[in-house]
Amino acid sequence: MLPFSRVAILGLGLIGSSVARAIRAAMPTVRLSGSDADPAVRARVIELDILDDVADGAGAAVVDADLVILCVPVGAMAAVAAEIAPELSPGTVISDVGSVKGQVLADLTAALPGMAIIPAHPVAGTENSGPDAGFATLFRNRWCIITPANDADPLAVERVKSFWTAIGSNVEVMDARHHDLVLAVTSHLPHLIAYTIVSTASDLEDVTRSEVIKYSAGGFRDFTRIAASDPTMWRDVFLSNKEAVLETLQRFSEDLSALQRAIRWNDGDALHTLFTRSRAVRRAIIDAGQDTAAADFGREHE
Amino acid sequence: MLPFSRVAILGLGLIGSSVARAIRAAMPTVRLSGSDADPAVRARVIELDILDDVADGAGAAVVDADLVILCVPVGAMAAVAAEIAPELSPGTVISDVGSVKGQVLADLTAALPGMAIIPAHPVAGTENSGPDAGFATLFRNRWCIITPANDADPLAVERVKSFWTAIGSNVEVMDARHHDLVLAVTSHLPHLIAYTIVSTASDLEDVTRSEVIKYSAGGFRDFTRIAASDPTMWRDVFLSNKEAVLETLQRFSEDLSALQRAIRWNDGDALHTLFTRSRAVRRAIIDAGQDTAAADFGREHE
Ligand SMILES: NC(=O)c1ccc[n+]([C@@H]2O[C@H](COP(=O)([O-])OP(=O)(O)OC[C@H]3O[C@@H](n4cnc5c(N)ncnc54)[C@H](OP(=O)(O)O)[C@@H]3O)[C@@H](O)[C@H]2O)c1
Ligand SMILES: NC(=O)c1ccc[n+]([C@@H]2O[C@H](COP(=O)([O-])OP(=O)(O)OC[C@H]3O[C@@H](n4cnc5c(N)ncnc54)[C@H](OP(=O)(O)O)[C@@H]3O)[C@@H](O)[C@H]2O)c1
Repeated sequence: MLPFSRVAILGLGLIGSSVARAIRAAMPTVRLSGSDADPAVRARVIELDILDDVADGAGAAVVDADLVILCVPVGAMAAVAAEIAPELSPGTVISDVGSVKGQVLADLTAALPGMAIIPAHPVAGTENSGPDAGFATLFRNRWCIITPANDADPLAVERVKSFWTAIGSNVEVMDARHHDLVLAVTSHLPHLIAYTIVSTASDLEDVTRSEVIKYSAGGFRDFTRIAASDPTMWRDVFLSNKEAVLETLQRFSEDLSALQRAIRWNDGDALHTLFTRSRAVRRAIIDAGQDTAAADFGREHE
Repeated sequence: MLPFSRVAILGLGLIGSSVARAIRAAMPTVRLSGSDADPAVRARVIELDILDDVADGAGAAVVDADLVILCVPVGAMAAVAAEIAPELSPGTVISDVGSVKGQVLADLTAALPGMAIIPAHPVAGTENSGPDAGFATLFRNRWCIITPANDADPLAVERVKSFWTAIGSNVEVMDARHHDLVLAVTSHLPHLIAYTIVSTASDLEDVTRSEVIKYSAGGFRDFTRIAASDPTMWRDVFLSNKEAVLETLQRFSEDLSALQRAIRWNDGDALHTLFTRSRAVRRAIIDAGQDTAAADFGREHE
């Protein structure tokens, strides 16, 4: 049996459109509606023909849905929830895909009292945005973290788990606060650092922008990929997971100072020991099926 | 006419073995000799059959060569140069592939007075090491930076340029000091930061190692690739380009503090402006043919 039969998706960018495509592929009988604040996005989604019905407003899209998934930037969740509140039927399950969970759980709970709110975060994405960037297999073999409140309806949790499993994800249930700490390390800090180094490299006096670009294959180009991610989405992530991000950043800065000191004092052994440890982490990620074993991410060398 | 007809390669790891393969592919009549400190590497290279002659010692490998390329870690250049000094014929051109150029130029000049020393750095590589990791097309469409001393023989410079062009590189001539500054930004700093973040993520109390690995697709895994690079090579790079690395790191730390402050004070506009700039850099790198335009580096999504 399908966990849901009428799904509404609000926000039809990379993630929302990928969810739509994944549902079409895995559960073709589900009736799919949706909306987006941007008329150009709505028009494009109609052209792409990945939903049964694209409504002009969020309210119209959720009428009759048994699952509503908010796929907008984290900072827009509260507004969208307020917009749909009057239209929701009592049994509807509300979920989302936001990259931060504590803030979103609080926002949705405040805006939608009495509703079954089961937040989720698929740990999958690319550097691109918008409906053309989405694809049906984005979530396959990636983890989706579900962060219900302690008093959430267990049946609703099970149904959201089944939903993500059906579109190919591995599912983990976690406390929202712990999610935000884990993701601060595995996602938010890496993005913050990538944005910083791109900025540092762009602002040097002695090295030109064109030199940075020409010689980027030395390592820099790897950082520019995630630093090309959507600015609005990432602004919202940092502002809504402030505490965990700042805490993790503090740790990182301390570790960086230690390395700086090792270089300054020619402590080659300390550097070698530290650099040797990293290889094991890479190997574990590949063994866990979370990255390709191909050299250079499998980039073409021809 | 070929720029060189008898080439000796010392150090037969990723880069040395790739140079050998590239020569075989582009200039099959060149006679190729070489050696490596590690007997297992020498045995493997004989099995791979990518050189005409694998000698037990560096000295024996360079006899008769008209080009000798040192492909050992930067910290081993001086020792290898001292080892081959007695065996070199007067007209031989000496080059290398080291990732740092000021130190290497100084080391080779001191060890080999009177010889034509034309250092080079192919800005190309992968996270893997050893002769099995090499391949013939590694240098194709990548830049090779040549850093001769001011008084270097112009003919020798031309020949080394022709050599790298013949195996597919674009060539740029640059002052060694400027090279070290540019590469500090585009390669050394990215590696330093990647090593640091992997270390930070491994040492947290509240987030387990297995969580870091499971949820690495949020961005962290991109960093683990370059943090899996050879520890000896990178120890040597940081110690021999200390000044430029520390200077660049200082800039990075200042920029990171500014971002930290913007997050702490909820300055969403500053974050958004900064994040928007980065996209242009990524686009320029793709337009310059230095990275793939495919989402997620073209990683397989199914
Ligand atoms: N990208 C990733 O890698 C990734 C991974 C996991 C989770 N997430 C999360 O997924 C969510 C969506 O991200 P995305 O990458 O799909 O972004 P995206 O491609 O930019 O799509 C977001 C869409 O939501 C629309 N939108 C914004 N505010 C809205 C509102 N008030 N009402 C209705 N629609 C609105 C946007 O329209 P406009 O064009 O008008 O802005 C845009 O079309 C975010 O919460 C993000 O944290 C992202
Ligand atoms: N990897 C990259 O991405 C990259 C890119 C551009 C330039 N480079 C430069 O290329 C050079 C080689 O790096 P690589 O990546 O090819 O490293 P690699 O795969 O580790 O190969 C280096 C080889 O040199 C051998 N070696 C070490 N000391 C030696 C000595 N005294 N005499 C003879 N052989 C010796 C090593 O043997 P052992 O096994 O005994 O150590 C190893 O087989 C370095 O200077 C590096 O800075 C690297």
